[in-house]
Amino acid sequence: MLIVMNRNASVADIARMTAHIQQMDCQAHITRDEIQTIIGVSGNPQRLNQTQIEAMPGVEQLLSTRTPFKTASREFQSHATEVTVGKVTIGGPGVVVMAGPCAVESIDQMMQTGMAVRNAGAHILRGGAFKPRTSPYSFQGLESEGLKILDQVRRETGLPVVSEVTRPELVQEMRESVDMLQIGARNMQNYALLQAVGKAQCPVLLKRGMMSTIEELLMAAEYILSQGNGNVVLCERGIRTFETYTRNTLDINAIPALRNLTHLPVIADPSHGTGRWDLVEPVALAAIAAGADGLMIEVHADPDSALSDGDQSLKPERFEALMAALGPITEAVGRSL
Amino acid sequence: MLIVMNRNASVADIARMTAHIQQMDCQAHITRDEIQTIIGVSGNPQRLNQTQIEAMPGVEQLLSTRTPFKTASREFQSHATEVTVGKVTIGGPGVVVMAGPCAVESIDQMMQTGMAVRNAGAHILRGGAFKPRTSPYSFQGLESEGLKILDQVRRETGLPVVSEVTRPELVQEMRESVDMLQIGARNMQNYALLQAVGKAQCPVLLKRGMMSTIEELLMAAEYILSQGNGNVVLCERGIRTFETYTRNTLDINAIPALRNLTHLPVIADPSHGTGRWDLVEPVALAAIAAGADGLMIEVHADPDSALSDGDQSLKPERFEALMAALGPITEAVGRSL
Amino acid sequence: MLIVMNRNASVADIARMTAHIQQMDCQAHITRDEIQTIIGVSGNPQRLNQTQIEAMPGVEQLLSTRTPFKTASREFQSHATEVTVGKVTIGGPGVVVMAGPCAVESIDQMMQTGMAVRNAGAHILRGGAFKPRTSPYSFQGLESEGLKILDQVRRETGLPVVSEVTRPELVQEMRESVDMLQIGARNMQNYALLQAVGKAQCPVLLKRGMMSTIEELLMAAEYILSQGNGNVVLCERGIRTFETYTRNTLDINAIPALRNLTHLPVIADPSHGTGRWDLVEPVALAAIAAGADGLMIEVHADPDSALSDGDQSLKPERFEALMAALGPITEAVGRSL
Amino acid sequence: MLIVMNRNASVADIARMTAHIQQMDCQAHITRDEIQTIIGVSGNPQRLNQTQIEAMPGVEQLLSTRTPFKTASREFQSHATEVTVGKVTIGGPGVVVMAGPCAVESIDQMMQTGMAVRNAGAHILRGGAFKPRTSPYSFQGLESEGLKILDQVRRETGLPVVSEVTRPELVQEMRESVDMLQIGARNMQNYALLQAVGKAQCPVLLKRGMMSTIEELLMAAEYILSQGNGNVVLCERGIRTFETYTRNTLDINAIPALRNLTHLPVIADPSHGTGRWDLVEPVALAAIAAGADGLMIEVHADPDSALSDGDQSLKPERFEALMAALGPITEAVGRSL
Repeated sequence: MLIVMNRNASVADIARMTAHIQQMDCQAHITRDEIQTIIGVSGNPQRLNQTQIEAMPGVEQLLSTRTPFKTASREFQSHATEVTVGKVTIGGPGVVVMAGPCAVESIDQMMQTGMAVRNAGAHILRGGAFKPRTSPYSFQGLESEGLKILDQVRRETGLPVVSEVTRPELVQEMRESVDMLQIGARNMQNYALLQAVGKAQCPVLLKRGMMSTIEELLMAAEYILSQGNGNVVLCERGIRTFETYTRNTLDINAIPALRNLTHLPVIADPSHGTGRWDLVEPVALAAIAAGADGLMIEVHADPDSALSDGDQSLKPERFEALMAALGPITEAVGRSL
Repeated sequence: MLIVMNRNASVADIARMTAHIQQMDCQAHITRDEIQTIIGVSGNPQRLNQTQIEAMPGVEQLLSTRTPFKTASREFQSHATEVTVGKVTIGGPGVVVMAGPCAVESIDQMMQTGMAVRNAGAHILRGGAFKPRTSPYSFQGLESEGLKILDQVRRETGLPVVSEVTRPELVQEMRESVDMLQIGARNMQNYALLQAVGKAQCPVLLKRGMMSTIEELLMAAEYILSQGNGNVVLCERGIRTFETYTRNTLDINAIPALRNLTHLPVIADPSHGTGRWDLVEPVALAAIAAGADGLMIEVHADPDSALSDGDQSLKPERFEALMAALGPITEAVGRSL
Repeated sequence: MLIVMNRNASVADIARMTAHIQQMDCQAHITRDEIQTIIGVSGNPQRLNQTQIEAMPGVEQLLSTRTPFKTASREFQSHATEVTVGKVTIGGPGVVVMAGPCAVESIDQMMQTGMAVRNAGAHILRGGAFKPRTSPYSFQGLESEGLKILDQVRRETGLPVVSEVTRPELVQEMRESVDMLQIGARNMQNYALLQAVGKAQCPVLLKRGMMSTIEELLMAAEYILSQGNGNVVLCERGIRTFETYTRNTLDINAIPALRNLTHLPVIADPSHGTGRWDLVEPVALAAIAAGADGLMIEVHADPDSALSDGDQSLKPERFEALMAALGPITEAVGRSL
Repeated sequence: MLIVMNRNASVADIARMTAHIQQMDCQAHITRDEIQTIIGVSGNPQRLNQTQIEAMPGVEQLLSTRTPFKTASREFQSHATEVTVGKVTIGGPGVVVMAGPCAVESIDQMMQTGMAVRNAGAHILRGGAFKPRTSPYSFQGLESEGLKILDQVRRETGLPVVSEVTRPELVQEMRESVDMLQIGARNMQNYALLQAVGKAQCPVLLKRGMMSTIEELLMAAEYILSQGNGNVVLCERGIRTFETYTRNTLDINAIPALRNLTHLPVIADPSHGTGRWDLVEPVALAAIAAGADGLMIEVHADPDSALSDGDQSLKPERFEALMAALGPITEAVGRSL
């Protein structure tokens, strides 16, 4: 940690800061040029309250030279984490594809879509029983009935299931019906929920908030990891920018950036990341080329009558085409599908 | 609602859409030029599933000509809502100032700050007992102990208290210690929490998410209103933009925009909206000039030792200076303090 | 300047850096904790090439502790600059209002609007003869004919005139017809144009680019100042954000931030900053309350037939009402109109 | 074009609008529901002044159902445009790689880097003789001397050269020394410059502004095309977002979106799009997987001493590795290198 004192900092300001640092069992190292004084801190700077220091007289800026996420970082663990969902491994050499409708609508719809994506080669089935919606008047999901459908479909298709959890009290019920709990973008900083899935010890798919930084995503993962649950998969699903042609802007840079910063697996969601079905395939290929460990793709057996997100869902035929196109790209980056 | 068909829409596409509209007990009105066909829908277009229609063949775009928030809109209720917190009215002719520290740290700190802001003219005391923090390793608030402190300080100062609620199950406990529940920016789309405070029927301060549009803020309010709780005050607290000199960008446009769009009171939080104590006063004055019904200001009796947000907190002397400066501005816009 | 070396920096890396710093006649001061080494540089760090240093082995980050804008900064000149346009002073105790149509359309329109804004109390007349438009097929301005109109109208109304310059070669011609040259938001980083108005020594109104940070705005001003022209007025005119309800988001924080950072006068343009005539008045009042030295307001005698920007222009009656509302606010912040 | 009248529009407002439309030789088609009236316009709506209509009484919104870019659109020309630079074709089956340093620094540096990128398989050499820099005190390029160096190096290496033009009056001089003129991101809306390269009829590389929408990029291309110059290649080079870990956010969605919207070739610049050399390779692969026609990569024979952008430049060895990795990806999407 570095403390940059401002131009007008007095000798007393600097002495007070040095005393404060030593009181916290750290050491202060002073560097000075014509204009400013900088105080380097060694020892255990975690003991220092950053905000308190920023507010002390004479301080201009506090520069942290450490990553604030600890257990999620590559420094903490250099080898890649593999997360196992049913019999599927995420973060290994194989690229994993999760596919299915946005929302569970009926047993027929789920069974039909589940079979279609399995036959096309998907590894995990997705489907929302609880849907967080911007409007209180929109369809909010089939809830418990939806969970029963998911449980039935996973038994019939043999595919493990991922589904979004929206409240801490749902965690137990959902664990019985689904294999992986998803934290949606709107809940990325719902800390009560992060702690609840942290305690549950089950695989978690953590989606990046649409206006959250890469560092905030890693801090949210840290909430789960700090409860002892290391089975976390991160998902880049597009950020909010000024561009309005697409629903979100998939942050392709985030994929290799996360691979550098963390040992957790990273997947991409080009369906939400673009919001347009006609852009899903090229952006899915791009994500794999950039190093993603997998994809989450919205597929709907009958998108014309989907109760939500119809315009970004693929029909089964287009999903098959996407899977076919993925093969060569996966190979080109030295992985398998 | 208007349905814009694309250039290649066939006659069958148009006929299918017309039939669908009529099936939902609405009427279709067709307009055509050389290039495109537009279908106007009358009747009760709420019955139509927008996403389903967007996904039907031949559809280019669906243009909604109605505001999606109903009971929060000026069209629904043209007169301004007044929300009463203790003996204080928000949304009337008087400008209301809420002030206090970011977090409750001790009985001494709260009592000292509470007295200071009351003497300077503040109407409501703020202080967080539960603090949502980006890092799991940061100070998370005194929790229940903090509530007891708030209860004691409101009795001694006579000021009503606003404090943030972070989980649905805390609503009951908090209602006994505080007068107004705050939904923080990170939780603006935590629908379980919105519904819980909606059911509680108590005054709610709803902060705009740093990544949320004006319309999304109003939809979040709609979640609370749809539970029968009309005591909602909106708070503009800065949005996330590319600018890094300030912590957030206070969206001054949002204040008059919200006054046009909704009957709910609107206040501004220049402490979070700027993130710098040296900008708080001018931006506070600006918010009142733009028509805000009140302000939320961070004040800390000893910001040098504040456990969070010290760099944006005012010392009591500066808060007094702000209150003094507010007087003439309030009068200039025909209101009182 | 501080050079943060990364965790894996070798002793050789540090020695190489120290040698490089000394070679450039600067001094290196080394600070070290368990993890990292930081090298403080004193002497004249301007001599060092930042990019070169960033690229040297072992370097993690380079932290500049100096503002990169020199002559525009408050440190360079602590007293406020006053810019004189005709007989009007910007940056003094009086708040200055520039008003007029977006584009010069005809002598009648300009004369009618010019008289209307003068009678309402405006100090400077605005009007574009050269209009940079997103589409090559949109109206691009009356050009030289527009300048003749501006010249005639300023003689009849007695108001000095500000108008946008879009190419270096227009500077000479425009100086004869107008009193202040405006650099539009799209041209804020058109360095050839900045240098041309810098050489012209005439008053310049520099608008912030809609994608530009506060620091970039100051660097653009520095381009003009570095040519010896100190007559620069800055204009906050709204930045581009994710919010779509308004055309831009007027960055109210920027007004007091600029007052802290620079000695140059700062005005606000709520017409472009909101893009909606119904928000212009409240946001104009807010800008003055926040400390702006003036306003730029679009007024059109007949906005129903304006050839550009009609939806954000005020009719003369509404402009009169705005001027009436400005009086008390101006007084409330201790200034005059 | 659709005109949405507001709820309070009177019969007279609607009649006035209808009359206005007919006066402009267009036809009005009226659609009405309980709340609003919508007027569809057929004939040639280009004749109507949109801003004038928006400002007429009773109008709520004007909905344009046409793309505003004409000659750049896929509707105007369905087959892909191929742009030829020297002997290189951009927009055909082959993926084209432009590589070289940010700035021309010396004949040795250019010759060394030029040979290195040619040997690694690059098709076009890049290098800036005129550098638009944020600070007036930064290195601005070798200017005419740099052009001479470029001319010499292209003769020796046999590679065509692309270089940035910053002022209209440089177009002629540059055409003699370089094969393709680049419009930089900051100048994307410098219309005088767009028209100048439009008139020059030479190949143009048009970079997207860092806060410009896809539509604005196409409108900027339209400025060049409208002068009769169809040799335009678009370049996605990253947009400005709230994320600060990377210098910009490369908008991967824009690549397939542009392929859908326009017939012009599209390339990507992962060097500026990420700002970090360690992310260049994965993002370059992603861009090709998403359908880009080529890449622009910063390579510097000695990035440690580069006078600008050193931290995002690749060393020749890393560029060779990138070219090797590109082969399989290019093949996977059915193209060649």
